[in-house]
Amino acid sequence: MKKSALQRVRSEYQPKLPKALQGPVKVRIGEATESVADQEEIKKLFPHTYGLPIVQFESSEEPEHVEEPFNVGIILSGGQAPGGHNVVSGIFDGLKRLNKENRLYGFLMGPSGFINHQYMELTAGYIKEYRNTGGFDIIGSGRTKLETPEQFERGLKILKELNIKALVIIGGDDSNTNAAVLAEYYQNIGAGVQVIGVPKTIDGDLKNKWIETSFGFDTACKVYSEVIGNIQRDCNSAKKYYHFIKLMGRSASHIALECALETQPNVCLISEEVLAKRMTLDNIVSYLCYVITERAKLGWNFGTVLVPEGLIEFIPSMKALISELNDVLAEHSSEMEGLDEMDKLRKIHSYLTPVNADLYKSLPKHIALQLSLDRDSHGNVQVSLIETESLLSEMVAKRLDEMKESGEYSGKFNAQHHFFGYEGRCADPTNFDADYTYALGFNAAMLINAGLTGYMSSVRNLTEKSEDWIAGGIPITMLMNMEKRHGHMKPVIQKALVNLNGKPYLKFASMRETLALNTLYQYPGPIQYFGPAEICDRPSMTLLLEHDKDIN
Amino acid sequence: MKKSALQRVRSEYQPKLPKALQGPVKVRIGEATESVADQEEIKKLFPHTYGLPIVQFESSEEPEHVEEPFNVGIILSGGQAPGGHNVVSGIFDGLKRLNKENRLYGFLMGPSGFINHQYMELTAGYIKEYRNTGGFDIIGSGRTKLETPEQFERGLKILKELNIKALVIIGGDDSNTNAAVLAEYYQNIGAGVQVIGVPKTIDGDLKNKWIETSFGFDTACKVYSEVIGNIQRDCNSAKKYYHFIKLMGRSASHIALECALETQPNVCLISEEVLAKRMTLDNIVSYLCYVITERAKLGWNFGTVLVPEGLIEFIPSMKALISELNDVLAEHSSEMEGLDEMDKLRKIHSYLTPVNADLYKSLPKHIALQLSLDRDSHGNVQVSLIETESLLSEMVAKRLDEMKESGEYSGKFNAQHHFFGYEGRCADPTNFDADYTYALGFNAAMLINAGLTGYMSSVRNLTEKSEDWIAGGIPITMLMNMEKRHGHMKPVIQKALVNLNGKPYLKFASMRETLALNTLYQYPGPIQYFGPAEICDRPSMTLLLEHDKDIN
Repeated sequence: MKKSALQRVRSEYQPKLPKALQGPVKVRIGEATESVADQEEIKKLFPHTYGLPIVQFESSEEPEHVEEPFNVGIILSGGQAPGGHNVVSGIFDGLKRLNKENRLYGFLMGPSGFINHQYMELTAGYIKEYRNTGGFDIIGSGRTKLETPEQFERGLKILKELNIKALVIIGGDDSNTNAAVLAEYYQNIGAGVQVIGVPKTIDGDLKNKWIETSFGFDTACKVYSEVIGNIQRDCNSAKKYYHFIKLMGRSASHIALECALETQPNVCLISEEVLAKRMTLDNIVSYLCYVITERAKLGWNFGTVLVPEGLIEFIPSMKALISELNDVLAEHSSEMEGLDEMDKLRKIHSYLTPVNADLYKSLPKHIALQLSLDRDSHGNVQVSLIETESLLSEMVAKRLDEMKESGEYSGKFNAQHHFFGYEGRCADPTNFDADYTYALGFNAAMLINAGLTGYMSSVRNLTEKSEDWIAGGIPITMLMNMEKRHGHMKPVIQKALVNLNGKPYLKFASMRETLALNTLYQYPGPIQYFGPAEICDRPSMTLLLEHDKDIN
Repeated sequence: MKKSALQRVRSEYQPKLPKALQGPVKVRIGEATESVADQEEIKKLFPHTYGLPIVQFESSEEPEHVEEPFNVGIILSGGQAPGGHNVVSGIFDGLKRLNKENRLYGFLMGPSGFINHQYMELTAGYIKEYRNTGGFDIIGSGRTKLETPEQFERGLKILKELNIKALVIIGGDDSNTNAAVLAEYYQNIGAGVQVIGVPKTIDGDLKNKWIETSFGFDTACKVYSEVIGNIQRDCNSAKKYYHFIKLMGRSASHIALECALETQPNVCLISEEVLAKRMTLDNIVSYLCYVITERAKLGWNFGTVLVPEGLIEFIPSMKALISELNDVLAEHSSEMEGLDEMDKLRKIHSYLTPVNADLYKSLPKHIALQLSLDRDSHGNVQVSLIETESLLSEMVAKRLDEMKESGEYSGKFNAQHHFFGYEGRCADPTNFDADYTYALGFNAAMLINAGLTGYMSSVRNLTEKSEDWIAGGIPITMLMNMEKRHGHMKPVIQKALVNLNGKPYLKFASMRETLALNTLYQYPGPIQYFGPAEICDRPSMTLLLEHDKDIN
């Protein structure tokens, strides 16, 4: 593999560890825990791994006790996030510090490699090629869900064959939920295998008091903010376009909010707010038209609008429409066969209840088609494929035309559309993410050596210097509650959506009107690795605000 | 304006000047010039500014002769390119070195500010805010064409009012052509105003022996290469998508080629090659399907494809179709009114000649609609709006389905689409572009002081250290030839398309098969400003190869 100049130099970067992990550690056992809700049910489902204590590592004068050399397996699960390779190298370095004979195995292409016994040993030379780089290509990732006893048993076979004592699952909320279930399962059958989770997701929705941020969020947001900033410069130079920019992030609007704090666009929609205020699509279009007409009065026919990926599903009326569409399409699909698109749309329209039919009719045709025709393997509408950015801009254009006729608006409106996601998930990690992920991995090795299972690697105090970060572990069960999934109540890690009482949102809300009616774009520029700490080491605005730090 | 941390630190960067410009200069007059073609016609059209000599600046022991303080005006013309602000600050610093009393005026929003007398004085404090930043927002840019005597006369009024001795036009080939016409016009009427051009365009198509590269190309390509690299990491981690990535660049494929050299994708289409080989859309689809099926045999159902923005117009058969569509739509537009989309398509189809009708029918419906419905103010098809990336992927998907049925292909094909343009045009300039643009601007001030008009600022030897760069000027007329525009022969600067005998293309062509049938992605990472020179100061691969330099 030929490397770029940056990669060659960057591969020499030595991620910084918290002080407690820099030498031998001892374990401080904290208080017993409870799950965030539904304590009785969760306790019943996790008899062996519920209520365990929080643990924290401290520097020790004595070397750690290591009985015998041991082997560890890892799985990269779900979507990529910057820093995954440093989790792997952190685990590797941690294992080797404990005992040079320890070995690390990687299961290939996600949980399926575990189930199907596809793996490789990760050696020092191989890992060296991936240190401080983005991507999950070191062993690949996959979306197979690890949740059935059959899968657990098949996996156990290869664990035993490779004499693996602990499995580390690097994933988001679902993957960590499954890690907890697997830990409980292995504990219950006395398999002698520990399971440790590592909190990964660019979406930023796996966080709480003990997991201050999931890894990758920082880097991905900085890549998006770089290109949003560039687009804003262009917007403010040419002064002729509204740029509608959709951002990945699944349900939660953390990415959009972070990018808004970084770049100060004219508008950033927050799905959680849309839901809380029960806003309709019409309300959103009206708000956008208000901003556009007010800016036009100031002579500005340009601007930027950030749109979170999950917006559609947070608009109660759209959610109701999608739900009815799923039913109508399931019930009447045979009648649609052979019809051309326009006739399909008419047919579907005729089956909808009046409120939904009106909304359906108000949508641009290509969006109505997307909602009606592109379905996933369960027959459901694929909300993530809907081009929300052009849905909004087309509805705005139509409304502005009407306002022009009635004399309420006299500006020009031209739109450009962007969707950023794949551009940031595999970027080389920022110094923050490079250090954080290395610490999470190194820390996971220490959790394994401490004999723990069903724990998530937790590194906290992240707005301070990395040497002052606090390393330890929390029982995954403490993050859980019961939620309905596919019609059944399941124990799952509670997803952290944007908190409308939290400081990041409140900060943005306090600036919103000013940003809309002025042009106060910020241009963060590309991620830097070699400059002053204020540029290279600053964590996300979200994290700083959540820790009462100044972001100016 | 609140600034990002990077902007605050970066504003302190002092761009490096060629040695010759670091102190007083003297002018070395070179040989007289000829235009690249059509010498007689060009000479007749430019009696006062044809055949002028090339000039070069050298260090002088004596301070320059400066008769009296003088004023200069500038225009930013056309699309944004990184480094424009440093051209402005270079001119400003050059003027001030010559005489502290010299003044600089900026015309607002491009040539229209010149024609309509909208301007501002650019003072030290104001310029300071923009040093080393991207964008053209310092005075704005615009696309008004400066080409009629009426415009020239209206502009002359404000030049006289502000006592401006020279006008600097920062633009691409068209804007510099117009600068030459304006220079000749003012010289002819004895207006006493010099006109100097500065070569700007991210597209990279304004270059020759004396203009080694236009400014902004380096930065824009590095931004695109960063995100392409990130996407390739994602592609190689998830191993489930083909990413079709369209890149700005108008007609020329320089940007796509440069990004291919930087990132090593599986496929990069080169419009100039498509034209030279008279390839059809079908040929291109066949090539893509060849690569995809061969990769599938290796177990790889993923890859990356770079598509230059101008591709469509370089496919002879598509060009013929578009040309006939323009005629059909002009002739029969009244018959289309009131028809729904499908009926419009059928009607248009019925009027096409058989060859074009077949091609039209083979296109995905939404592309056929784009070709038929979205027209510009002259009634022409808007080729730049056509989603070539999805046109190709949809035709590939269809062909692969057929190949699957006939047993020639058994892989999986899923596509993602991207279009990058606005993401890079206003990025903060790389060190290379920051230095180059500052030198171009500073140099322009020296050309003005040397009393020259109809010259373009030329800074050469760009693959060497900036102190060894050669500064001077060339008469714009030497770059010209006669070309047909809107039915008339016009003197224009010859556009530099990708040279199929040039080293950048040959280098890519030599690697092409290897890149297609392996996975050798490179990940350049984000632009760096503070690290080792090998990372921060390297010019584009295109420039290095054109100067016989090693790119590894």
